[in-house]
Amino acid sequence: MTLLDSLFRYDALDRIFSDSESVQSMLLFEAGLVRAQATAAIIPESASRAIAAQCRVENFDFAALQKSAALSGNIAIPLIKMLTELVAKQDPEAARYIHWGATSQDVTDTATILQLRRAFELLDQDLRQLTTTLATLADTHRSTPMAARTWMQQALPTTFGVIAAGWLDAILRHHHRLAEIRPRVLTVQFGGAVGTLAALGEKGPEVARLLADDLFLTLPLLPWHSHRDRIAEVATTLGLLTGTLGKIARDISLHSQTEIAELFEPAAPGRGGSSTMPQKRNPVTCAVVLSASYRVPGLVSTLLSSMTHEYQRGLGGWHAEWETLPELIRLTGGALHHLAEMLPHLEVDSARMLKNLDATNGLIFAEAVTMALAPALGKPAAHEIVEVSAAKALAEARPFKAVLRDEPLLQGKLSPADFDRLFDVRYYLGSSDDFINRVLAAAKDSSPSPG
Amino acid sequence: MTLLDSLFRYDALDRIFSDSESVQSMLLFEAGLVRAQATAAIIPESASRAIAAQCRVENFDFAALQKSAALSGNIAIPLIKMLTELVAKQDPEAARYIHWGATSQDVTDTATILQLRRAFELLDQDLRQLTTTLATLADTHRSTPMAARTWMQQALPTTFGVIAAGWLDAILRHHHRLAEIRPRVLTVQFGGAVGTLAALGEKGPEVARLLADDLFLTLPLLPWHSHRDRIAEVATTLGLLTGTLGKIARDISLHSQTEIAELFEPAAPGRGGSSTMPQKRNPVTCAVVLSASYRVPGLVSTLLSSMTHEYQRGLGGWHAEWETLPELIRLTGGALHHLAEMLPHLEVDSARMLKNLDATNGLIFAEAVTMALAPALGKPAAHEIVEVSAAKALAEARPFKAVLRDEPLLQGKLSPADFDRLFDVRYYLGSSDDFINRVLAAAKDSSPSPG
Amino acid sequence: MTLLDSLFRYDALDRIFSDSESVQSMLLFEAGLVRAQATAAIIPESASRAIAAQCRVENFDFAALQKSAALSGNIAIPLIKMLTELVAKQDPEAARYIHWGATSQDVTDTATILQLRRAFELLDQDLRQLTTTLATLADTHRSTPMAARTWMQQALPTTFGVIAAGWLDAILRHHHRLAEIRPRVLTVQFGGAVGTLAALGEKGPEVARLLADDLFLTLPLLPWHSHRDRIAEVATTLGLLTGTLGKIARDISLHSQTEIAELFEPAAPGRGGSSTMPQKRNPVTCAVVLSASYRVPGLVSTLLSSMTHEYQRGLGGWHAEWETLPELIRLTGGALHHLAEMLPHLEVDSARMLKNLDATNGLIFAEAVTMALAPALGKPAAHEIVEVSAAKALAEARPFKAVLRDEPLLQGKLSPADFDRLFDVRYYLGSSDDFINRVLAAAKDSSPSPG
Amino acid sequence: MTLLDSLFRYDALDRIFSDSESVQSMLLFEAGLVRAQATAAIIPESASRAIAAQCRVENFDFAALQKSAALSGNIAIPLIKMLTELVAKQDPEAARYIHWGATSQDVTDTATILQLRRAFELLDQDLRQLTTTLATLADTHRSTPMAARTWMQQALPTTFGVIAAGWLDAILRHHHRLAEIRPRVLTVQFGGAVGTLAALGEKGPEVARLLADDLFLTLPLLPWHSHRDRIAEVATTLGLLTGTLGKIARDISLHSQTEIAELFEPAAPGRGGSSTMPQKRNPVTCAVVLSASYRVPGLVSTLLSSMTHEYQRGLGGWHAEWETLPELIRLTGGALHHLAEMLPHLEVDSARMLKNLDATNGLIFAEAVTMALAPALGKPAAHEIVEVSAAKALAEARPFKAVLRDEPLLQGKLSPADFDRLFDVRYYLGSSDDFINRVLAAAKDSSPSPG
Repeated sequence: MTLLDSLFRYDALDRIFSDSESVQSMLLFEAGLVRAQATAAIIPESASRAIAAQCRVENFDFAALQKSAALSGNIAIPLIKMLTELVAKQDPEAARYIHWGATSQDVTDTATILQLRRAFELLDQDLRQLTTTLATLADTHRSTPMAARTWMQQALPTTFGVIAAGWLDAILRHHHRLAEIRPRVLTVQFGGAVGTLAALGEKGPEVARLLADDLFLTLPLLPWHSHRDRIAEVATTLGLLTGTLGKIARDISLHSQTEIAELFEPAAPGRGGSSTMPQKRNPVTCAVVLSASYRVPGLVSTLLSSMTHEYQRGLGGWHAEWETLPELIRLTGGALHHLAEMLPHLEVDSARMLKNLDATNGLIFAEAVTMALAPALGKPAAHEIVEVSAAKALAEARPFKAVLRDEPLLQGKLSPADFDRLFDVRYYLGSSDDFINRVLAAAKDSSPSPG
Repeated sequence: MTLLDSLFRYDALDRIFSDSESVQSMLLFEAGLVRAQATAAIIPESASRAIAAQCRVENFDFAALQKSAALSGNIAIPLIKMLTELVAKQDPEAARYIHWGATSQDVTDTATILQLRRAFELLDQDLRQLTTTLATLADTHRSTPMAARTWMQQALPTTFGVIAAGWLDAILRHHHRLAEIRPRVLTVQFGGAVGTLAALGEKGPEVARLLADDLFLTLPLLPWHSHRDRIAEVATTLGLLTGTLGKIARDISLHSQTEIAELFEPAAPGRGGSSTMPQKRNPVTCAVVLSASYRVPGLVSTLLSSMTHEYQRGLGGWHAEWETLPELIRLTGGALHHLAEMLPHLEVDSARMLKNLDATNGLIFAEAVTMALAPALGKPAAHEIVEVSAAKALAEARPFKAVLRDEPLLQGKLSPADFDRLFDVRYYLGSSDDFINRVLAAAKDSSPSPG
Repeated sequence: MTLLDSLFRYDALDRIFSDSESVQSMLLFEAGLVRAQATAAIIPESASRAIAAQCRVENFDFAALQKSAALSGNIAIPLIKMLTELVAKQDPEAARYIHWGATSQDVTDTATILQLRRAFELLDQDLRQLTTTLATLADTHRSTPMAARTWMQQALPTTFGVIAAGWLDAILRHHHRLAEIRPRVLTVQFGGAVGTLAALGEKGPEVARLLADDLFLTLPLLPWHSHRDRIAEVATTLGLLTGTLGKIARDISLHSQTEIAELFEPAAPGRGGSSTMPQKRNPVTCAVVLSASYRVPGLVSTLLSSMTHEYQRGLGGWHAEWETLPELIRLTGGALHHLAEMLPHLEVDSARMLKNLDATNGLIFAEAVTMALAPALGKPAAHEIVEVSAAKALAEARPFKAVLRDEPLLQGKLSPADFDRLFDVRYYLGSSDDFINRVLAAAKDSSPSPG
Repeated sequence: MTLLDSLFRYDALDRIFSDSESVQSMLLFEAGLVRAQATAAIIPESASRAIAAQCRVENFDFAALQKSAALSGNIAIPLIKMLTELVAKQDPEAARYIHWGATSQDVTDTATILQLRRAFELLDQDLRQLTTTLATLADTHRSTPMAARTWMQQALPTTFGVIAAGWLDAILRHHHRLAEIRPRVLTVQFGGAVGTLAALGEKGPEVARLLADDLFLTLPLLPWHSHRDRIAEVATTLGLLTGTLGKIARDISLHSQTEIAELFEPAAPGRGGSSTMPQKRNPVTCAVVLSASYRVPGLVSTLLSSMTHEYQRGLGGWHAEWETLPELIRLTGGALHHLAEMLPHLEVDSARMLKNLDATNGLIFAEAVTMALAPALGKPAAHEIVEVSAAKALAEARPFKAVLRDEPLLQGKLSPADFDRLFDVRYYLGSSDDFINRVLAAAKDSSPSPG
């Protein structure tokens, strides 16, 4: 727990990756293993019970674990040793059967998978909340006009609803991606020292299946310990999600600029304010989400570049995952959670959006005018008249509409009603409504996999 | 075309991303657009034909295009201008209707998607070849014993078949991933200047659908120009694949070391040899594949970190994709192709594999002995005897088997037949055969999506 | 040469890394080597002349080179073979002495170093031009007030001169960094097959020194072929530079937004314009520079992660450098060159800067008021009055100055002259002028190492 | 403190970046600021004393700090608030003067710099220890022959001394790099809200200088808050160092393979052992160092890609540094420390090194033979004889020396003494000794900057 955790992360998700929960997840594996082996008649039922009874995190000395981890190179080795000592105190006979035929990587990897399952549930919850909020924004603001900007310059009108629908559409794809990887990722790792389950003789497949069932995990075709694509695809999938979250935060922060002032993170006592600069509404959530979007790509590249594990166990490559994957999930999950919490309270200043559409003195409607004149004059001629008139409007700082009205070549070409329509944002929104409807329908249909 | 292309890349894949094919793909979009708009009665059928007739890459001056790209910030703007001039020479009336209602990003993004479709086909072909080869290796060598190594140290016996099956299993997952992203990625981009299709009035949805059909692409819910997850997931998916290719190459290069000498890339005149060091068989393909595994993660992180496009078009972030995505595909595709070409000719020295199993003077069977003694003595006692004997064997440089035979505590515990079995690698392969069968069955069932 | 080269890169720098120049640089090494060995009386003077005479790039068949590179795993091997054939045609005796005692990595690495030296010269030129331009901007605009923004919100006044001085200050540090690494990087690599110069017997040190002198490179303590920090630090140093270039481009693009409109890239025919949206001034150079700032960090991470070369030559790690380092330099050099070319023509709208300072209705002076009241009231009380008044100004949409004037608690505290001064940006610029002077003096003193 | 800290990190270095030390460093800034301002007669001497007296970390409630950080977006804001409350309890008058004219980024950045200074000291200590150890290895083993390997294949003989000297040479360069960046990095940040020190009126420069002196930091030309190259170059410099550490660890782990067995990490109870596989000596330190070499490049790319801070304060980019920089330093420092601690105990099996030189049945001397024959026969003819003989030796599994002796074309060309010399590794080490001497002399001369 560090000072910055509340800012960058989400406590419920953090807890899943705490040392305590990591160790407990490893103990769940050990308990599942002895149950499976008792069922397969490899070890006595009584030993299984005696061992499982000790598989509780509160029985373990973390300071000693930490110290031994530095010597053995992982947590699993000293943990098994401690577990053996604990069991031996109660039932020396049972202690023989701990971790039978398994290896450190089996328990470490499977514990990670168990933690991932819980993390996926929380991510799904926040994705669902985000989906609901974005659908509401898209629907509510389907007729809220604002300037669309390309190259960071005002281009044409759009609506805030279309923008929110675009955000939503991307989020829906992330739902699907997470649903796709889930069965592939949530897979037990159990291969023994080198992936042959040699120590279990003929019983390997049976025990593996029983263990997978016990832990409600998929049984893979064979142990995957030295093939890390399952782990790395958690990283890449969350990397993609973080990219989208960052895009949304980038947009909001841009729309929040003093001179644009269209969107604001909610105000609250002590939130994003500055006592000496009361005019400021600092977008704290955007900063948090953007920081994740800067940090996660580097972590993804670490997990990809460490995939080249040597032989039957990676030297360094495997170790590189241990903190990187949880950190990546915590950053993505924190960004997602903070954004999902903030967005329902996003302040939308539709009056200012409308006002900003005037920033170019009507030039934002230049394309509309061109397209309106094109059928009659041809696009090239229409372009030219519009271009010349726009230059004139800019040079003389006059409204574009007025310049066009005075343009000799257009006399008789456009009626006053035409002019009104052409400079009315409502008449130049194209397929916006249709797009919003399509995304909202998809959001409704989408039944993201329950945790 | 550079001097290193043949080394690092695959020419058929490279061609897809050549300037020529990029421009042709953009022209396919423009031709598809006018056909769709003629069908939707937005532009005259004759104009559509006149425009489409000019949409041939050989009509364009690439030197001029290159020069103009520097001014306009992309290729699309000067390309459309040139196309307009070309058409105007033949049919000035038709020239009005070029690129009607579309924007540079529509043509650029959709052209990329068309290129990706072709790239996926080639990747699939090589993945299928790799699958076949690996399945053969796994089956052929299911009973070829070799040392498994963890922490880069000999651990227990395994078979080369199990190792090949592990490689194959990972490759099968990449088949599935590519199949999953294909429909999501192969999606038309068509939104007009800011994503509302405003210039098409009511006809936007109809034209978008016709265009998608014309190009045999999926129609998205709404334009996705400023949401780059579709592009970035091509990168992440290939990043995962490259990681697996790198792992295979890492393994082969390690097994090829002079002192290990179990696997070799094929010899051929001029291939990987050194005239002054004839003892060398340099693993050139491994070097190529490993170099891709070093390079691709950085490119993935670029594509993830550039996802935060501003407003309705990214400034710099979009531009960062243009060369990065093709380069990434070319590196992955090159690595895949070279590995797929080399692997059928991989030389497997099974005699040396067997010989290397003796490197530890029998200690590689220590776990087998422990597990054999454990039921009778309990694992702790079995461990202790084995550990003490192993230390003795190491200290005295004697065969482990001999030391055990002399061990007073074991007198009467193991028969000569037991000893023979315990030190016979064939009896300590656990579930290897079962694992191989499972993967081979999956490989047979797997019907990777046809290009 | 690709369609995007003119947009993203700088042709003079690109040429240095062309295939042609790469091969020529390798031939310079071979020619330098035979000259050194003739001087050291290892090979005949006549052989040296005969070999050096053929070391001209135009003698070589690049298609054949490319093909052979794929087999041998590098360009050097086939190049030496071709050179040998060429020389043998003229002087079979001389042909024996080509590449004597050297290895592929010697010629490849040293050729890269020779190319880096030329690249550094071009980078220095552009850095000097950038320095001059920024110094002019800082000096010219030392009294051009504008809003400073933190969290993307208007915070306090500053001047454009201070901002330009900040850009300049960072650029000066990059000058220094490049000067620091130059002698460390510009070092010959010459070690023979494994870094012992064994084939030269006693003469290794002498030849190495003569070779370094011939090429005007530093002689290292020992061959550095498998230690890549020299190569990687070129990447990291340029990565830092690109980060600063990206920061400048980010700033300019933000200041160019329609609603802010303080800075503009220069207008030119066909430059950054849109025929249908005449109001736009697309910041093309910013896009180019920002795209480099997205791309370079991933390339840096590639060069860092590939440093772990195995034994006496990296497998894959070395290969990963060959295209990554040139690409990185080309991107950095392109961004630098385009920015250095554009900046002298940057349009600064100081009137708009002043106008934007009014965007908050005077609230941007809140800190100034607080600080002015603090000595008398204490900072907490001053804060409170300012905060309450600011809230009132916001709520009632009134000028902050007016609200303060009406504030009962301030009656008699501030004279009309005080008010004028407090709301006059010129009186709240602190140390701005001093800062500018310091940076300008440093820029003048700075005598960046001549190419 | 997590379970993996002892494995991956170095506790003394970790403590520097603990929350407690971070907060204390911030308080050092606040105390230094009030002292400077008292000296400059901006605030009363008594206030300075009252404030400085409270600047002790034990006075602060970390749970409250954490909670407030989430609202305010950083730690500085709530910390200043708490400090104000603490001081106000003792001396309400003094409380007015806390943090006068400073901003959150001033305290945050300068605190980081203070922590960096302490981290540099520890890094220097470990670098010095590493230097000493490597110098000893290089000297001790200057005549310990071993096989050099390129492409992971035995190539020619070398000595372990040369290899250690290569490691040392690289480490010396890192000393120099750290010394170069130190004065540039150890620089106070003090600019007030936007970098103008506006709140200090005329006194800005004086206070800045006094503050820098108080903290023993360099005074920069102007505030550098939005230019992050100073921060990022800490990352790149340590990234380079980690690359070298990874290279050393890569080498050791390769030399430790069962079949090579030339180098070993020291054995110790509980260290790198496996109870069921007593033959193993797991290279735990190599795993730790390699894991750092996988992780650090991604963190470097994060710090480079987040350099594009917006305007006068980065949104998200700045936040991305806060945990990334400390994490990077902790990983590099941990890798360095563990390697520096392990290396003095590295076990070198020179007998095995010698034995491995026989692995190719004499072919490792092929180049030596070629070079010996070349003066008489010409290199091409010498090559050919050697190549044919080598092929024969491989095909017939005979010693290369024997095949050469039988070669008709060589009859009379080489005396028995020649043969002895040619196949004696001591006569084919070239400049090895000279190289080692040069590096050792440089190591002696090098007086790395004292902490």
